Amino acid sequence: MTEEEIHEAVYAMGRGARKAAHALAVLDAEAKNAMLRAMAAELRKRGPEILAENAKDLAAGGERGLSGALLDRLRLDEARLEAVAAGVEQVATLADPVGEVLDERTRPNGIRIEQVRVPIGVIGIIYESRPNVTSDAAVLCLKSGNATILRGGSEAIHSNRAIAAALQAGGEAAGLPEHSIQLIPFTDRASVQVMAGMDKYLDLIIPRGGKGLIETVVSLARMPVIKHYDGVCHVFVDEEADLSMAAEIAIDSKTQKPSVCNALETLLVHEGVAAEFLPLFVEKLGARPLELRGCGKTRAILGKGVLPATEEDWSTEYLDYILAVKVVGSMEEAVEHINTYGSQHTDCIVTANGGRAERFLREVDSACVFHNVSTRFSDGEEFGFGAEIGISTDKLHARGPMALRELTSYQYRVRGEGQVKGVVG
Amino acid sequence: MTEEEIHEAVYAMGRGARKAAHALAVLDAEAKNAMLRAMAAELRKRGPEILAENAKDLAAGGERGLSGALLDRLRLDEARLEAVAAGVEQVATLADPVGEVLDERTRPNGIRIEQVRVPIGVIGIIYESRPNVTSDAAVLCLKSGNATILRGGSEAIHSNRAIAAALQAGGEAAGLPEHSIQLIPFTDRASVQVMAGMDKYLDLIIPRGGKGLIETVVSLARMPVIKHYDGVCHVFVDEEADLSMAAEIAIDSKTQKPSVCNALETLLVHEGVAAEFLPLFVEKLGARPLELRGCGKTRAILGKGVLPATEEDWSTEYLDYILAVKVVGSMEEAVEHINTYGSQHTDCIVTANGGRAERFLREVDSACVFHNVSTRFSDGEEFGFGAEIGISTDKLHARGPMALRELTSYQYRVRGEGQVKGVVG
Repeated sequence: MTEEEIHEAVYAMGRGARKAAHALAVLDAEAKNAMLRAMAAELRKRGPEILAENAKDLAAGGERGLSGALLDRLRLDEARLEAVAAGVEQVATLADPVGEVLDERTRPNGIRIEQVRVPIGVIGIIYESRPNVTSDAAVLCLKSGNATILRGGSEAIHSNRAIAAALQAGGEAAGLPEHSIQLIPFTDRASVQVMAGMDKYLDLIIPRGGKGLIETVVSLARMPVIKHYDGVCHVFVDEEADLSMAAEIAIDSKTQKPSVCNALETLLVHEGVAAEFLPLFVEKLGARPLELRGCGKTRAILGKGVLPATEEDWSTEYLDYILAVKVVGSMEEAVEHINTYGSQHTDCIVTANGGRAERFLREVDSACVFHNVSTRFSDGEEFGFGAEIGISTDKLHARGPMALRELTSYQYRVRGEGQVKGVVG
Repeated sequence: MTEEEIHEAVYAMGRGARKAAHALAVLDAEAKNAMLRAMAAELRKRGPEILAENAKDLAAGGERGLSGALLDRLRLDEARLEAVAAGVEQVATLADPVGEVLDERTRPNGIRIEQVRVPIGVIGIIYESRPNVTSDAAVLCLKSGNATILRGGSEAIHSNRAIAAALQAGGEAAGLPEHSIQLIPFTDRASVQVMAGMDKYLDLIIPRGGKGLIETVVSLARMPVIKHYDGVCHVFVDEEADLSMAAEIAIDSKTQKPSVCNALETLLVHEGVAAEFLPLFVEKLGARPLELRGCGKTRAILGKGVLPATEEDWSTEYLDYILAVKVVGSMEEAVEHINTYGSQHTDCIVTANGGRAERFLREVDSACVFHNVSTRFSDGEEFGFGAEIGISTDKLHARGPMALRELTSYQYRVRGEGQVKGVVG
């Protein structure tokens, strides 16, 4: 396709989405839930077809030499597809945030001001590899009254097209407005650039993928972007910590699933307990494989088997069985380290001193600050949101785990009886 | 200055601001209020000095041939400066949004999740001509716990420097952390570009000024931007409107102060009442000067004295004594017109039919939707927010009039007793 054709095709989708968004904004929860149930049914009905399309992606990926891990992320099977359909039904059971009255006030002149939650409008989702995102993102946007334009990765294009077609067909049979859920059907890279410039029709872009993708979207986008670069999470073991609890929390935060953004990357240990805590931590680790990269004091305690940490380690998201360890002189130093090297995702203090915990929670400038809890709980499901569209490390609009509420805006509705400001002109 | 020097100078301010922001975030309301009162006192104390600096800007502006209106926006006098100082004191009386608990929940596993309002961090304000913005913006940011980097227009540089120096000196004597309020002291255009790229230190940019400035910031910014392009506001006179009330509201919305963003630009009239309403509207206008640009039906009713409206008129923000007028066949057509040509700022229906009013409020996709109220009430002061940093026509984070709450983010504080997710790895 020429650049002009891509531009035209994406803008046509934008116009359609804007129209759909106006129709979606006034749907009630029951209507949206009926659509969601119909979409889940259609996903199940088209299961064999979707798996056949997925097989094409897997074959192409194999030929292109994708790694086993990437092929696994791409792969759908009956169980995974059933999980996708069940996820759609689950969203139908969640409360509809639209219409919630956030604030009400009556002014001395009698005008009544109501702040009401409304959908954002049209949301662009740009993502890589995992085809389940096509469904997960689209249905969360639908439940919150938004139209979506989806742009998946080329490696999953057949799967994505099949899933999007099932969602559209199922939804439209139940009254879903046309163009509510649209997938860009081609994989030319220029489509990302066109989306990023289309602020006339896209109210928000959520990029989900690697740092390169996110960087590209951030530098091109003319509309708000909600994103998440890194999860460089910390656990600080205070001098008044229950050391056994601290070791359990650190081990869980690091090893329960190292490949995710809420996993621990840097362990900070108060120097008053380092000599006791660090050997205990290693003992509790047992046979779990974990490469430690420590500061000088850590290596003095644990020995030269611990690799020396470099400056770069303090800001690295390993997503692997690697842990940076630093001994600090005080809680203040821990807070300063976290605010300097962290990614403002999730940071935890382990201490029995309540006052110091409260100071840590207040002074650490991160989306999620934890006291005596594993960082692995930093997640929309674990927070009880019922679903998660992602975790934001931004500070505007949405911060931390994002669910339906974070996919809404608000509107002021003002009612009066003819109030005027006073004729001056 | 070379580009490199500008880059270095602005980044040094960014680093300082980030440090200040961490200190500001934990200040209580009383501490911030004391600083604000000290800043107001210092503004008064330095009044003659500030006016002398302002005189330099006025002289330079006169030499450069600035228009009378621009010179008036630039001008400070004792009364205006007193208003600036009084505005600072007024902000000290407003409630502090920081620390408000927005949500609380306890999960089945016992972890307690609290969503707490916190400052955003460092806010960049890029603005033109009016030197009072230096103070207004800085003190609203301070009250909400944020550090600011201010970049004013070259035409007001002497005034801005004098005001910023007074705020800093007054504040710091009362304990304001260093670098909390910083003004870029030079006026090289490259500083805007450097700010827009400095997402490491700036959490948000608010551009205030003409469309050119805002366009520049939007296309360069790597961080969220809250802005306001246009106010193409509508009044729709429904067929069930009290026509006298409708005329009063339309005249007030248009003529009470035409140069502001919440002034009426396009009047929509239901065809069922157009023949009666339009002459009444003209009669009530009386001697007020107002150029009408009408559709064919409007001209058929009011005569050829009304200029023909072009397609461009429907999306024009005149900010002047000019009004576009269109007769529409139904409320649906009015809603469609507003959602197509409007700027999603403020739109009003005048009707005695409550059901139709509610449909209008729900279906018009604008920040502020009004029923039987002049659009001129679309304003933070009129909404009872006590102050206003601007009106946003964006949908993310802040929409409509913005005050202290809109200058905050939130943080999840999670407390437990050693909960771990379960050791798998």
